[in-house]
Amino acid sequence: MRLRVDLLPHGTYPDVVVVIDVLRATTTAVTYLERGADALLLTATPEVALALRDGAPEGSPYLLGGERGGLPIPGFDFGNSPAEAAGQNFTGKTVVMNTTNGTGAAHTAARTGKHIFLAALTNAHAAARRARATATEEIAIVCAGTDSHVGLEDVYAAGVLAEYLLAMGEFTVDDGARIALTVRRNGGNPLEALSSSGHGQHLSRLGLGEDVRFAAGLSTSTLVPTLVPGEGAPEGTLRFTAG
Amino acid sequence: MRLRVDLLPHGTYPDVVVVIDVLRATTTAVTYLERGADALLLTATPEVALALRDGAPEGSPYLLGGERGGLPIPGFDFGNSPAEAAGQNFTGKTVVMNTTNGTGAAHTAARTGKHIFLAALTNAHAAARRARATATEEIAIVCAGTDSHVGLEDVYAAGVLAEYLLAMGEFTVDDGARIALTVRRNGGNPLEALSSSGHGQHLSRLGLGEDVRFAAGLSTSTLVPTLVPGEGAPEGTLRFTAG
Repeated sequence: MRLRVDLLPHGTYPDVVVVIDVLRATTTAVTYLERGADALLLTATPEVALALRDGAPEGSPYLLGGERGGLPIPGFDFGNSPAEAAGQNFTGKTVVMNTTNGTGAAHTAARTGKHIFLAALTNAHAAARRARATATEEIAIVCAGTDSHVGLEDVYAAGVLAEYLLAMGEFTVDDGARIALTVRRNGGNPLEALSSSGHGQHLSRLGLGEDVRFAAGLSTSTLVPTLVPGEGAPEGTLRFTAG
Repeated sequence: MRLRVDLLPHGTYPDVVVVIDVLRATTTAVTYLERGADALLLTATPEVALALRDGAPEGSPYLLGGERGGLPIPGFDFGNSPAEAAGQNFTGKTVVMNTTNGTGAAHTAARTGKHIFLAALTNAHAAARRARATATEEIAIVCAGTDSHVGLEDVYAAGVLAEYLLAMGEFTVDDGARIALTVRRNGGNPLEALSSSGHGQHLSRLGLGEDVRFAAGLSTSTLVPTLVPGEGAPEGTLRFTAG
């Protein structure tokens, strides 16, 4: 079995892909499901999200969550804040998500990957177990990064997952995995790593430090957002459920 | 001053770019100059290199060096081997280079960067000094990687340069630089790091372990291949001299 870490999304994926955008898309995605959401629809653009809600009949289950540059998108119901989501009840709702990096990474992964999961530090144990149980030839951990630049927080989280996976069995690892493991083993505890990242500092400056603290919680959830292929997802969206 | 490390080539560069392909293009480039070559012409494709020599008059100074997948290119005079180059005399010669990753990274950097240098472990001190003396706003260290995948050996070398640069002055660093510094500080000595990389292992399997050992030599040269902009370079080539 191969274990591969892409420090940014690229290339093609033959088997399992685990998409990581710790600050904050995949952390928020886990939280929406944890707080009762039926499903998540990840859209490629904000416009697809807005059109989806505007075209839906009265009483539709859609709520829109997302950000650009860390700030809420006009017309959306929620920012991309896991701390905010943790205080809400999403029972019976479908959250339509669009974010700067994470949703794009999921779409890149879904173009070729067979099984797509979303992972964060908050569901790290469960995501590693799910990936291991599903994969037949390769687990690719894909870091979303920030505006096409590598994100320390994603590489650190990839290293956390890689540590767990190596505990579960033998893998041949690539240089991305070696780098992620080195960063995880020497980058301090999760809050230190996230707080020292460029994006963590950016969020703190925006007054969103609570999200950074929330995202640093290790394995606080056992839910793994899982792509449901085929019907059921409106065009231009990827549908994830708790699997 | 900003210090940025791109773990793979991407984006645009406003100021100084230091291109790293430790195994083996930039290590070999330094060696060609160290062994007397007047200049290096980095071509975008092997065909440009072959056409350049075939179109040159009798007694032209062109020698062709390069590889694909680690192996010599048919029709070329040399592989991409620093150990081989170290035993030759290139006085009065211009080496036309084409390699799988390094020459492409240099072309990417040259599209926007103002000052382009080639760096390896073998000229690390000199390359860091040259970058520091030249930059006015940003030093971008660009890792060539291997076939669009991040290479541990390049990230390690970027961390070595970043360490030297931080000794010379204050920088704001990005997450790529943070990751490279972590890998350098925790990745063992240069030979250990290079030998544990996927590409280092590939070269050893090809019987090119001597090149890995050569490339792990720290600051054995003070020459820094420097892009000479403007005239003098045939179309489709970048001309580097010892600066």
